[in-house]
Amino acid sequence: MSDRPRKVEFREEGPREGFQIEKTIFPLAERVKLVEALAETGLHHIQVASFVSPKHVPQMADSAEFFAAIRKKPGVQYAGLWLNEQGFERARATGHVDLQGKISLYASDSFAQRNNRCSAAEMAERQKGWLDLYAAAGVKPDYAIIMAAFGCNYEGDIPPQRVVDLARYAHDICAERGEKLPQVFLADTMGWGNPEQTRRLIGMVREALPDTRIGLHLHDTRGLGTANVLAALEMGVDLFDSSVAGLGGCPFAAHGDAGAAGNVCTEDLVFLCHEMGIETGIDLEALVECARMAERLIGRRLNGRVMHAGSLAKYRAKQGLAA
Amino acid sequence: MSDRPRKVEFREEGPREGFQIEKTIFPLAERVKLVEALAETGLHHIQVASFVSPKHVPQMADSAEFFAAIRKKPGVQYAGLWLNEQGFERARATGHVDLQGKISLYASDSFAQRNNRCSAAEMAERQKGWLDLYAAAGVKPDYAIIMAAFGCNYEGDIPPQRVVDLARYAHDICAERGEKLPQVFLADTMGWGNPEQTRRLIGMVREALPDTRIGLHLHDTRGLGTANVLAALEMGVDLFDSSVAGLGGCPFAAHGDAGAAGNVCTEDLVFLCHEMGIETGIDLEALVECARMAERLIGRRLNGRVMHAGSLAKYRAKQGLAA
Repeated sequence: MSDRPRKVEFREEGPREGFQIEKTIFPLAERVKLVEALAETGLHHIQVASFVSPKHVPQMADSAEFFAAIRKKPGVQYAGLWLNEQGFERARATGHVDLQGKISLYASDSFAQRNNRCSAAEMAERQKGWLDLYAAAGVKPDYAIIMAAFGCNYEGDIPPQRVVDLARYAHDICAERGEKLPQVFLADTMGWGNPEQTRRLIGMVREALPDTRIGLHLHDTRGLGTANVLAALEMGVDLFDSSVAGLGGCPFAAHGDAGAAGNVCTEDLVFLCHEMGIETGIDLEALVECARMAERLIGRRLNGRVMHAGSLAKYRAKQGLAA
Repeated sequence: MSDRPRKVEFREEGPREGFQIEKTIFPLAERVKLVEALAETGLHHIQVASFVSPKHVPQMADSAEFFAAIRKKPGVQYAGLWLNEQGFERARATGHVDLQGKISLYASDSFAQRNNRCSAAEMAERQKGWLDLYAAAGVKPDYAIIMAAFGCNYEGDIPPQRVVDLARYAHDICAERGEKLPQVFLADTMGWGNPEQTRRLIGMVREALPDTRIGLHLHDTRGLGTANVLAALEMGVDLFDSSVAGLGGCPFAAHGDAGAAGNVCTEDLVFLCHEMGIETGIDLEALVECARMAERLIGRRLNGRVMHAGSLAKYRAKQGLAA
């Protein structure tokens, strides 16, 4: 408990995670409105869209236009996702993406094949080329992400040592180039994590890389998302990927389809932090309005809870008047 | 972490919590089927229905028939809820309710007025009469429940000392009658709790009543239910009220209607415990089937997560075969 951070940072992934999983392609103007509203809440990092195959993910075919259409707010990073060199080049070519040097690694070989059409080892090898590409573009290494670090629907449980080895590998290929790896994200891509495992993984990665900030990218597939975040907070973790309204899930495809379930919900986690006295720099009420905007846009009930129940602010305001 | 219990007990409240909040009155045979299926999962306590005013809660008007229709499984308690002496007498008269001597207390006066049409102090005073009634019926005190212990939509934050005083009061009126109070439940009736507060309340009540087992009755109104359970587990709490499928909520009335949101979800918590190596005695797969049965009956998507994504068993079975 004493390790709990004073302030926590959220990287908002709702637009990218949310829109990529929906069948519908929503009007560009509406997507832009959501991103612009999110930027007004105090969030400093918003992952807007991905630069992946328009054939496989048609929802992301207009990513370049999407980025170009956003009225940027100073101090906010508008991030993009790529899974290969061409994706990075497309993102860079827009001139509108805040480029972070990202290293992508897989703790599951079968998932690498499905998500990236290569083996986990091949993906790891390719990261050296990515770093060279970043260097040529003047982009510093920013973070590594280790996907399926908590378990995999195709491979089952993942040995934690494999995750540690991948984190160290990411660190080492940066070091070989005279660079630091500032951050490593452990991703529970398919919602396998539990609080005990979360603690253990964080402890092991921290021991291996004491100078690298640890972040978590969690999906709330089986209802343990918030409990896993709590476990991480108590290990001193202060960096989380999350999605407004818990976007990223597809309830109607989710029976037996764990991979489709949403991310941990930004406003619910902001609520958690504020109630526990941890700062986030985020205006919770404004963020709840964004969640409701997303729900209206997507047109079905989303997973967030605070967005439906409301925060405690209005009750406390009444209490203040009564007292 | 070292305080974590080896085994946890869940009191299932889905039937009572779930059906009372729905507008529809579901066919008796279907409700009976759900209770009978729940009894086959390893649950030892099922709160079936309440004996409250049929005028105010018409969904519970046929509670006596409901209890009578259930094929009882030996070793399972089929519990009922009452809020006054007449309710207890009605429950007793059925001859089918497993009667537990329950003391009902309110940490919020305004909520007592709304839920029980009397002040919190009057409710506390009445409990002496309840104990006399129980004694006359040969029913031992079993537990006290302190409602709105974490906060109240009508009164705001609740001072924890008030909760401790109520717990001690329940203990003392039992002691005056030469009886023990085996258990005290802290109820987050309106979903105000956070993990830090959960720990603090548990610590304070335990210090005041070291020989009384502490249970929690939590609603997941704002997404912190599972995190609060985790905090409690780490304080050694081994007793929780919960609802299959997260029953008890009404999503379509829940915008700004925090009081209507569901309980913590039994099968999600069983999943949490099993993943953390804590026993529950419950067959998770059978319980997930009950949750799906409840969803079919109620006819809209319910809040549980594992029921939609599935547990990890089938992936691990594949892994076992592959290895």
